[in-house]
Amino acid sequence: MKEELTKHSVVLFQQKGFSETSIQDIVDSIGVTKGTFYYYFTSKEMLLMEIHERYIDDLLNRQKAILEQIESYRAKIVGIVKLIIHDLQTQGPNGRIYFREMRNLAPENVEKIKKKREAFRLNVEQVLRDGIQAGEFRENLQPKMIAFAILGVTNWSYQWFNPSGDVSVQELADMYVDFILNGIISERD
Amino acid sequence: MKEELTKHSVVLFQQKGFSETSIQDIVDSIGVTKGTFYYYFTSKEMLLMEIHERYIDDLLNRQKAILEQIESYRAKIVGIVKLIIHDLQTQGPNGRIYFREMRNLAPENVEKIKKKREAFRLNVEQVLRDGIQAGEFRENLQPKMIAFAILGVTNWSYQWFNPSGDVSVQELADMYVDFILNGIISERD
Repeated sequence: MKEELTKHSVVLFQQKGFSETSIQDIVDSIGVTKGTFYYYFTSKEMLLMEIHERYIDDLLNRQKAILEQIESYRAKIVGIVKLIIHDLQTQGPNGRIYFREMRNLAPENVEKIKKKREAFRLNVEQVLRDGIQAGEFRENLQPKMIAFAILGVTNWSYQWFNPSGDVSVQELADMYVDFILNGIISERD
Repeated sequence: MKEELTKHSVVLFQQKGFSETSIQDIVDSIGVTKGTFYYYFTSKEMLLMEIHERYIDDLLNRQKAILEQIESYRAKIVGIVKLIIHDLQTQGPNGRIYFREMRNLAPENVEKIKKKREAFRLNVEQVLRDGIQAGEFRENLQPKMIAFAILGVTNWSYQWFNPSGDVSVQELADMYVDFILNGIISERD
């Protein structure tokens, strides 16, 4: 039931926005009472926090696996880009809420999520820094700014990409890997 | 006064979000009455529309000048990237509201703004298409997807860039021009 509540809320938050969605809307969408909601969550904000936390924890875990298991820095970047783009298929609505509704969390929760988002970005930055030193990436790159550029390409796709359109997430991931690698590698293939 | 109302609203909308900001909050922030507000705007939504429309009309006009006055496709892309990044300095709050609050417009207004945003993006797509044909850009690029990638890099910066930080908008623009051109040009310099 907790899973159900979360899933339906994600759909409603995406359609109407967090502020415009009431707990009544959420429970109506599954046909339960408010009592059921309050059994699992103390507030709508707590539910939003749950959505944010699950999403970023999952991303961080999978990023960690990429960082540990893959050798070259170039391939680590490819892995991280593909991770985010492939998620468009299954995590699109979660991602959009994650990018849009963070300001509706309580300040202490915003801080928690911001730290985790930052950790994800700093890992990308570190790969770039190490890759520059190893000669894989161009030495004039500023790792911090380029990490933001890469995440701009991937995260922006959550604003517009339609996984049911004529480009698949696999095709999109390949194009973006190509675009990003050309933007950073020290020699053309 | 209309200008004042718009300017203060932008600040409030950015801090608290559009839904959470009342007309009372807006008039209180300048010390006028609600009557003054309603003299210029029929509703809070109309004010939001004014912010959106001014912002995109201005961008489209300046994009048009770039497209008409600059010769090479490569330089047109450079011009458009610099346009968006340099605006971070002066248009940051407008840009953030533009990217975040569109869903609070009335459906017919959303359509109007969407068409204009699309026009801006389609112009980028056209430059890419023409530049591929002219041999300036790699021929394996998919203009539509790459236009979104470029706008991802530039637009995402409105989410995180601090113009008072240790990187200037000029430096950021140069780095992003370099990153993007390397991602698309057909030959390295």
